[in-house]
Amino acid sequence: MDNINQVLIVGGTHGNELIGVYAIKKFQRSHPLIQRPSFVTHTLLANPGAIAANVRYLDQDLNRAFVDSAAPSPANAPSYEQQRAAELRAQWGQPESPVDLLIDLHGTTANARVMLILDDLNPFTLHLAAYLSRCQPHLRVYSSSGSGRRQDSLRSQARYGIGIEVGPVAHGTLRADLFQQTEATVLAALDFVEQLNQTGTVPADLPRSVTCYCYRQALDYPRDEQGQLQAMIHPDCQFRDYEALHPGDPLFLSFDGDTIPYQGETVTYPVFVNEAAYYEKHIALYLTEQQIIPLP
Amino acid sequence: MDNINQVLIVGGTHGNELIGVYAIKKFQRSHPLIQRPSFVTHTLLANPGAIAANVRYLDQDLNRAFVDSAAPSPANAPSYEQQRAAELRAQWGQPESPVDLLIDLHGTTANARVMLILDDLNPFTLHLAAYLSRCQPHLRVYSSSGSGRRQDSLRSQARYGIGIEVGPVAHGTLRADLFQQTEATVLAALDFVEQLNQTGTVPADLPRSVTCYCYRQALDYPRDEQGQLQAMIHPDCQFRDYEALHPGDPLFLSFDGDTIPYQGETVTYPVFVNEAAYYEKHIALYLTEQQIIPLP
Repeated sequence: MDNINQVLIVGGTHGNELIGVYAIKKFQRSHPLIQRPSFVTHTLLANPGAIAANVRYLDQDLNRAFVDSAAPSPANAPSYEQQRAAELRAQWGQPESPVDLLIDLHGTTANARVMLILDDLNPFTLHLAAYLSRCQPHLRVYSSSGSGRRQDSLRSQARYGIGIEVGPVAHGTLRADLFQQTEATVLAALDFVEQLNQTGTVPADLPRSVTCYCYRQALDYPRDEQGQLQAMIHPDCQFRDYEALHPGDPLFLSFDGDTIPYQGETVTYPVFVNEAAYYEKHIALYLTEQQIIPLP
Repeated sequence: MDNINQVLIVGGTHGNELIGVYAIKKFQRSHPLIQRPSFVTHTLLANPGAIAANVRYLDQDLNRAFVDSAAPSPANAPSYEQQRAAELRAQWGQPESPVDLLIDLHGTTANARVMLILDDLNPFTLHLAAYLSRCQPHLRVYSSSGSGRRQDSLRSQARYGIGIEVGPVAHGTLRADLFQQTEATVLAALDFVEQLNQTGTVPADLPRSVTCYCYRQALDYPRDEQGQLQAMIHPDCQFRDYEALHPGDPLFLSFDGDTIPYQGETVTYPVFVNEAAYYEKHIALYLTEQQIIPLP
């Protein structure tokens, strides 16, 4: 694998996901923590406007704003996040000085524990995932490949991009345990890169495979003709991210107390169950397939 | 005790506390649920602008906007919530047709379980609290008397006002179990009022006392000179609402991992620990005193 020369750690892509914001502030205050001899580590607070307002975004989701530059520009004046995406692309997305690894820090109201988001299952990210799984027992690996997230996310600007998504944590709040797990996961990722750069190889004692929850489908809440919610996540499904959901299992509970079962035909493993920011996207949860992926 | 003739159930005083909003929508759809023979039950979505925007408030906290009408009016144009407070006062705060009981539904990111908020420990609310404690094992009683909440809250407009505050739930989300506990608590409160009106007396088999967590003090997070957070709620304190906190117990954890102990001199019982909306109010938690209050 090629050397990693530049790493960018990002928080505040969503302004009210405070764990990432405060982790970046800590790394900026204590830069030696994230320095390693063989590469340069940068830090970034991606959406300062949203951070200051303590909201996810001001005009639109920054992490969906990195649309292909060949796409026609919108007729209206660019939104705050469109401008911000253009600035970030100019600063960090240049082919002549690429960010080799971008680590984007997030929080979720779902019971993600420490979710490592991989947009792309390549040898580098799979070995990194295996290494982090060994260091961090709460870690789960989610593959967003197939969800389209690689196309328009901030992570798309780097050669390799990973997300670290911790939860459950309410937006606009900190949780000390998840803060510490975020920090430990970032530092372990930097250690992995350092070892890879120094030795040209990955540790010999890694697990031989990675258990990966692979995106298959997004499911919305039941809604009426006006788009109004008709049901909530069922208590038997709430906080049960990564747990098997079988056909017929309780999935939603209507406001009148009626259980609405999962109607799929095969077992699935929900993630991002009851994420606050996904109500407006009409997403109640993602359905994934659990796969054991051998290391290349 | 006098008859209760008009009850007003309110949700959406804070627009992103969805359990209250959807409980009111359900009660409006299924009005017979909340009808009782001896009194009239009304429903209200208090802050429609904030509900539509899925935020706590548009300009200022509506539940702090019911300032004394004798107070001088602000020099600037009234905020959305000031206008809304004036409308609500005109509609519901008239002495000639008083709301006898106002039940205000809230959600919190703190581990409130089902918190019954009493602004005022009078015979009616204490008997109601005793009745609800018997019906609802998750219920805890918090007395905000002494916190000043009675002065400027929506509840101040009624003869008797109670809050039902459920958590932990992230703002902008629903939780089915807490939705059902909210609904059950409201319906039990209506049953209590019906019985009181019909018989002129409270049930004979009520507990003889109510355990009440009484507000004593608000504590802020440790901050630096610029007001920036320096620490988070300690993992040993997170979600430990209503549990004894002794002098020297861990209270905060700095971003560098240092424990900051509770420095009070007596045991206290925190509530509203790590409530998202209180960061901007510079409140990390409330300290309460646990009191056993005999029924009058």
